[in-house]
Amino acid sequence: MVNNQPTKRDAHLNTPSDAPVIILVETSLAENIGMTARAMMNFGFTELRLVRPKCKWPNSKAINASSGAHSILTEAKIFKNTSEAVADLNRVGATTARLRDMIKPVKDPRGWAGVVRNSDVDLVRCGILFGAERVGLHNDDLALADTLIMVPTNPAFSSLNLAQTVLLICYEIRMASDVEIPSEIRRKGRGASLANQKEIIDFYEHLEEQLDKAGFLRVKEKRPRMIRNIRNIFNRALMTEQEVRTLRGVIVALTEKIRKP
Amino acid sequence: MVNNQPTKRDAHLNTPSDAPVIILVETSLAENIGMTARAMMNFGFTELRLVRPKCKWPNSKAINASSGAHSILTEAKIFKNTSEAVADLNRVGATTARLRDMIKPVKDPRGWAGVVRNSDVDLVRCGILFGAERVGLHNDDLALADTLIMVPTNPAFSSLNLAQTVLLICYEIRMASDVEIPSEIRRKGRGASLANQKEIIDFYEHLEEQLDKAGFLRVKEKRPRMIRNIRNIFNRALMTEQEVRTLRGVIVALTEKIRKP
Repeated sequence: MVNNQPTKRDAHLNTPSDAPVIILVETSLAENIGMTARAMMNFGFTELRLVRPKCKWPNSKAINASSGAHSILTEAKIFKNTSEAVADLNRVGATTARLRDMIKPVKDPRGWAGVVRNSDVDLVRCGILFGAERVGLHNDDLALADTLIMVPTNPAFSSLNLAQTVLLICYEIRMASDVEIPSEIRRKGRGASLANQKEIIDFYEHLEEQLDKAGFLRVKEKRPRMIRNIRNIFNRALMTEQEVRTLRGVIVALTEKIRKP
Repeated sequence: MVNNQPTKRDAHLNTPSDAPVIILVETSLAENIGMTARAMMNFGFTELRLVRPKCKWPNSKAINASSGAHSILTEAKIFKNTSEAVADLNRVGATTARLRDMIKPVKDPRGWAGVVRNSDVDLVRCGILFGAERVGLHNDDLALADTLIMVPTNPAFSSLNLAQTVLLICYEIRMASDVEIPSEIRRKGRGASLANQKEIIDFYEHLEEQLDKAGFLRVKEKRPRMIRNIRNIFNRALMTEQEVRTLRGVIVALTEKIRKP
């Protein structure tokens, strides 16, 4: 169905309100946050989120390293955990330097830029997660993403600087915005907008609460891994809002039998 | 002219002897030289030339910033002027942040990568010139290049860090070569084989049987559509055998609470 109303956002990808959100998780070096802000502004990105930064914040070293991209730093929002930082996003990519033991689509920055390019900016907000300098993202953070992003580096020397990884991804998204890319399989319209992460995480928590009650997650040392595995299944499905509601109904149906056996 | 002699160089683009030479002119900050070496090694480049570096050389700050790409720094050659530094090269690109008053082809990094890619490695050695941090290349240096390279940055904030410009160009040249790039969807091994349709349909039927018992599918005319919708969610997830087993466990856990409330 075509909507003839003016859209709330400019259709151009790189206007501030549409550009993907950059999310740095547990960054240690303020300089890297500053360089990230600079790289973002170089390619027209403005929204930075910091999850538990490991350096003092705000930080003059970050401001110096940003070479003038102050505004991104002063407007950066701080989050206690990654799930809050992705709550309003519909699609989440997670950068990783190595393939993890989880099943998830893997794209290079150009492939991810195609995802962003082909997403309807009025319906889909995208974000990209970047882990700490030495260890990268936790598996729990990766489980919040629908896609892993790997830069095809020299296998013998694969460790990219954090801000340089941000740069490559912002660069590719900008390049994609100027270049026509054949559209991917797109979700059908009519109210089938992708769920945001808050809706998805609420669903997970609902499911996990019921699984806890049922004793399914009782082996303590296995619990985190089981939760990740289950979340990863649903994450790959890129569910719509309606689908999340359906699955919540499924959980209620399966569990409420207790009350009316 | 075709040369039938065995080639001196391996035909593969990214072997050290073929990869383009990176030439930094009058660089001020040793950290930028170190970061350049790191970016080069990230994408399989090895040959660095320095024209009149403005910092002490060799320099421990450069070594620290290279994060292990020492060998590029120790083998870097120093030149008194740019013309000597490009003397053995056949094609020279010069990076610039702004269009200069000179008539010369201008390419973005991807366009330049195409030039490198399409050059016969036995006949054409390529190099890229990068100017000083604040002022860029002199016009005399630009005059030594056959092509200007401009990164399509945000016009309102166009100043890229030196090492980041090197990174983007090395990245594009590597992307243009036929090196392996992560596949769109890569499955991890270790018994994670995709479930077959029998396993998946058994899972669906198990779920639907329980939903029938719970009355979730009681509206007869809606039932087929609801079942399709639920199946579609799980179908998109492309589950492994293990994941199907996990979800069957989930159903059992959620429903068995009936028996032991």
